[in-house]
Amino acid sequence: MSEHTVSRYDDELKDIARRIAEMGGMAERLVDHAVTALTRLDTTIANSVISDDKRLDLLQRECEEQAILIIARRQPMAMDLREVIGALRISNDLERIGDLAKNIAKRVIALDGQFQSKRFMTGVEHMAELSLAQLKDVLDAYALRDVKQAFEVWKRDAEIDQMYTSLFRELLTYMMEDPRNITFCTHLLFCAKNIERIGDHTTNIAETIQYAVTGELLPDERPKHDDSSITTVPYETT
Amino acid sequence: MSEHTVSRYDDELKDIARRIAEMGGMAERLVDHAVTALTRLDTTIANSVISDDKRLDLLQRECEEQAILIIARRQPMAMDLREVIGALRISNDLERIGDLAKNIAKRVIALDGQFQSKRFMTGVEHMAELSLAQLKDVLDAYALRDVKQAFEVWKRDAEIDQMYTSLFRELLTYMMEDPRNITFCTHLLFCAKNIERIGDHTTNIAETIQYAVTGELLPDERPKHDDSSITTVPYETT
Repeated sequence: MSEHTVSRYDDELKDIARRIAEMGGMAERLVDHAVTALTRLDTTIANSVISDDKRLDLLQRECEEQAILIIARRQPMAMDLREVIGALRISNDLERIGDLAKNIAKRVIALDGQFQSKRFMTGVEHMAELSLAQLKDVLDAYALRDVKQAFEVWKRDAEIDQMYTSLFRELLTYMMEDPRNITFCTHLLFCAKNIERIGDHTTNIAETIQYAVTGELLPDERPKHDDSSITTVPYETT
Repeated sequence: MSEHTVSRYDDELKDIARRIAEMGGMAERLVDHAVTALTRLDTTIANSVISDDKRLDLLQRECEEQAILIIARRQPMAMDLREVIGALRISNDLERIGDLAKNIAKRVIALDGQFQSKRFMTGVEHMAELSLAQLKDVLDAYALRDVKQAFEVWKRDAEIDQMYTSLFRELLTYMMEDPRNITFCTHLLFCAKNIERIGDHTTNIAETIQYAVTGELLPDERPKHDDSSITTVPYETT
């Protein structure tokens, strides 16, 4: 390759990384706004999340096209190829995170005007804070190609899973306490599930950073602490 | 390209299509078995779904590697490039469908021994039948590159969405009737949501077929009839 070609190639790689950073910032904002909309039950913010998510979908398609063009034109090898495949995977995960934020925003519209109590929201807020911090950290790790930080994010997801399992139990208890809580708490359960899924996509990104930088994979199974799908709450008659 | 090269290239494209067909058959089986496990509350079948899903994940990674190798080595253009990108996207959707089947199987383990009534299951069974039929049809459409059939599948997803919305309402009503139904019906709600998501991935595949064969995209927005996220059920004191 001539020097000229190499430098254009380098620009292309930088450009795709820039696009991922843009998508990352957008995904963070969508999650942040979706959670704000939820905790304040603000349908105006919720509607803006729903419409902004379209832009993220578009960016993902552009990112995919760009990655494929680079692979076809440059036939990158080893680390460069992993870099491009990594960008492809991360853009997929970010697009899915945007979708999950959009799903939370849609629930806010359902919850508008429903019977509720402030205490229902506390657990969801906590989960959301942690998962936003995780998303921010993994995007920083990507920008710096910091494998160590990516690994920290990957491990810390277990906390979100544990919070989700205990929240699942808590919300079921509120539902049993008073049937008027059922609709509200069911929608909150789905929101909590969406946040837990955002955490999963964040760990996917951490795994991709590890792969792109080192060529190695993280262990097949992350220590999973989301036991909500095997959690039951007995109904005690008092 | 020499004739020899062309024919090897052709073999590579056929090979990737064969791999997608294998993944498709596996995804169908996983969904089928997960639903059987659910309706019979059979934890043995549920456990087999959870372990079989790993094989699908592996196939997806292999498919991705193969597609990228073809793009780098052959620099395919136009229809051939769309074919390879299509395979990449479809393998992603099939892997996600396997994950959703696995999630249903995990819930079966939670539901084991829980209070329940046969009538809770009817709606989920109906939804599952339709979504399995849709998955089968879209895989046939892919095998035959039948754009018309893919479009039919795409349109018919609205039925699954409508079933899901009415099932959401129904399960909430059972929960309000008797708090002992809450845990069981909550897990069923999540299973129903997983089936609805399987439907979404099926329509993604239909969209990819359209794109791979014609280079055109289906309309940006599918007529969405899943209103469950904006559905509420008032609790009536009688």
